[in-house]
Formats: sequence, structure tokens, C-alpha cells
Amino acid sequence: MRTSYHEELDSIIDRLVHMAELAEAAIKTASEALLTADLTKAETVITNDAELDRLHEEMEYKCLSLLALQAPVAGELRIIVSAIRVVFELARMGDLAAHVAKIARLRYPAHAVPPQFQASFAEMADIAIEVIDVARLSLHDRDANQAKRLVEIDERMDDLRADQFTTMLAEDSDISIEGAVDVALLGRYFERYADHAVAVGRRVIYIITGQVPEGEDWPNA
Amino acid sequence: MRTSYHEELDSIIDRLVHMAELAEAAIKTASEALLTADLTKAETVITNDAELDRLHEEMEYKCLSLLALQAPVAGELRIIVSAIRVVFELARMGDLAAHVAKIARLRYPAHAVPPQFQASFAEMADIAIEVIDVARLSLHDRDANQAKRLVEIDERMDDLRADQFTTMLAEDSDISIEGAVDVALLGRYFERYADHAVAVGRRVIYIITGQVPEGEDWPNA
Repeated sequence: MRTSYHEELDSIIDRLVHMAELAEAAIKTASEALLTADLTKAETVITNDAELDRLHEEMEYKCLSLLALQAPVAGELRIIVSAIRVVFELARMGDLAAHVAKIARLRYPAHAVPPQFQASFAEMADIAIEVIDVARLSLHDRDANQAKRLVEIDERMDDLRADQFTTMLAEDSDISIEGAVDVALLGRYFERYADHAVAVGRRVIYIITGQVPEGEDWPNA
Repeated sequence: MRTSYHEELDSIIDRLVHMAELAEAAIKTASEALLTADLTKAETVITNDAELDRLHEEMEYKCLSLLALQAPVAGELRIIVSAIRVVFELARMGDLAAHVAKIARLRYPAHAVPPQFQASFAEMADIAIEVIDVARLSLHDRDANQAKRLVEIDERMDDLRADQFTTMLAEDSDISIEGAVDVALLGRYFERYADHAVAVGRRVIYIITGQVPEGEDWPNA
């Protein structure tokens, strides 16, 4: 009984890593759909989001069952309780990718991203892939140093978003109303990717150290 | 020992209700700050948000301690695990109120909400207060029927937001770029209030019934 319990516990981390892979695929494909106005890719992300939501439910149920049926202590308890939060964060990243894909679909065959913001969103997309990649690695390797890197990557995303506002609201701005609405919301979704990755990083550090990192650098996302 | 444990368990619901009251105050004051361009109220919401974040940390720590030190079963376990999620949702509602207040502060002494959207946001504010009010009552009374009402209230919020997009993007729209950016983001924050309240409702139903409600009506927020 205890052996199978410990096997289940080990498998939890594996499943989190798997979910992070799916979230990464969703973010990557949604970015491509957005930046190249690719309807097929947008539809793929929207369709596949159900699988991440299903895994979220399944993992939450599994973790609750482990809590109810076993009496996990110390490190085991930390893994299970953290897993409940991490699956939530990863599922939210998938939801955001679906939001991005829906904007791409809504504007198809036109491009949702106005030409003057193409480079900025391409950079945001690179950062989004970097944060989910680092979050996945920190989970896989139980590596607190990787997790800590997420805070500074998040700052680069915030800086890009601030630049987008400056450009949009500049006196010589030639953006349309529709473009402004899309840039405002897309920028928010990309920013939230990074916030959720930072939240995953906090839980990884909690699993490793038993302390939830706090303070300015680790806002509650 | 067991008595004090049961007292702690009872007090958890009380604390969730208290947090819901703080979230409601934040939402109400942020809406007033927004709709009347009141800088003092905006600053109040932004300052007070730290208290909700502190309670979030404190409650999460308390719940994790109960899980670690006791071996809660069945209904007790459901309360503790649900509380961890509910405090997160309530803290997020406070964060969103702070986001709304920050937009009011950014545009002060001007009004962030363009005149033609004043009525729409006043209605969104009413719905936001209604959702947190109903979420609080459902927690206080452990009332699944109240919790279920949240789904339909959420739909009214979504409808209002759809109307805002229609108005903004209409051919005869006279909104400025800054106005469009603010309406897009503010609308998103108000929509998210309702999503988080629905998520609280799901957990209340789980506490009462042991089943997490699923399906189209209960999206993962």
C-alpha cells in the first residue's frame, strides 16, 4: 500500500511536467496562429484546451484522494498541496493560449496584431515560451534556481507591455480602435502567462525548501 | 487537542466570510473611485489590498498546517482544501479591484470611463457587488442554491462586456484610443470578478456535496 502510494507521489511530478509540455505547445501554437494569422493553428489550440482542463480536474481529484486516503506528511504533503495549485496555474496558461487563439480566429483572415506591434508580440511570444520552458524545467529537476529566474523573465514581459502602452497612446499613434482593443487584451494575456509561470516557480521553491517565497519579487499571481 | 482542531475548522469558514467582506468593500470602493474619479478612494483600495494578500498567505499557511498536523477526513478535508482555493479566489478579486483603482488613479482628474460607457460600467459595478455578495452568503450559509445563482449572474456580466465591444467597434464609434484601451481592460477586470465568484461557488458546492460541479455552466475560472 505504501509503495503504491509513493509511486503515485512520484508520478505526480511527472504529470505536472506533462501538463507543462501541453501548456507550452498551446502557447507556442497560439503565438504562431496570432503572428501568422493561421486559422488552423488557432482552431487546434482552442480544441486542445479541453485536454488541459480535463487533466486539471483529474489531477485535482487524484491529489484530493491522496490527501483523503493517505496521511501524507512533510515533503509528501508539500508535493500534493503544491500540485493542486500548479495544475491550476498550468490550466490557466492553457486558457490564456485559447484566448489568444480566439482573437486570432476572430480577426482572420486579417492579422489581429497591427503591423507596428508585430515585433513586440514576437518578442512577447519568445518570452512566454521561455517562462513555461523554465517553469517545466524547474519542476522536472526540482531546481529552485531555475524557479527564481522566472521573476526576472517576468519583468522583461512587463517592460514590453509598458512599451506597448506608450506606443499606442503616443500623439503620432496611427492605431485603430480595433487594434488598440486587441493590443490591450493580447498584452494582458501574455503578461498573465508570465505571472502564472512565476506562481508555478513559487510552488516549486515551496516543494524544495518548505518555504513559500514572499515579498515584492514574488507577488501573488 | 481535537476540540481545538474542530474550533479551528469552524473558524475557517468565518475567516473566509471575513475575507469576502473585505473583497466586497474593495470592489465597491474601486467602482466608486472609477465612476466618480475619486482619487482618495482609489488610493484606499490600492493600500488596503495588502491586507487581503496578507490574509491569503496567513490562511493558506493555517490550512497547510491543519493538513500537516491533523489527519482531516471527509467533510473536514473538503473544507480545508476548498478554503485554500477560496482564499486565492478572494485575494484575486481584491487584486482586480486594485487594478481598477490604478486605472482610475492613472487618469485622475479625468474620468477613465468614457461618458458613453458610464452607464454600462455602473451596471457592471452593480453585478460585481452582487456576485461577491452572493458568494459571501453562499459561504456563510453553506448554501448550494445561492452558489448556483452565480452562474447566471456571470452570464449577465459577459453580455454587458459583449455589448461594450459592439459599441466600441461600431462604425459611428467616437471613442478615443485611450478610452478603448481603458474600456477593454476594465471590462476584462469586471468580467474576471464574476469568474472568480463562480469559482468560489464551485468550492462551496464541493464543501456541501462532495462533488465539484462540472460542465459548460461551471468553467474552470
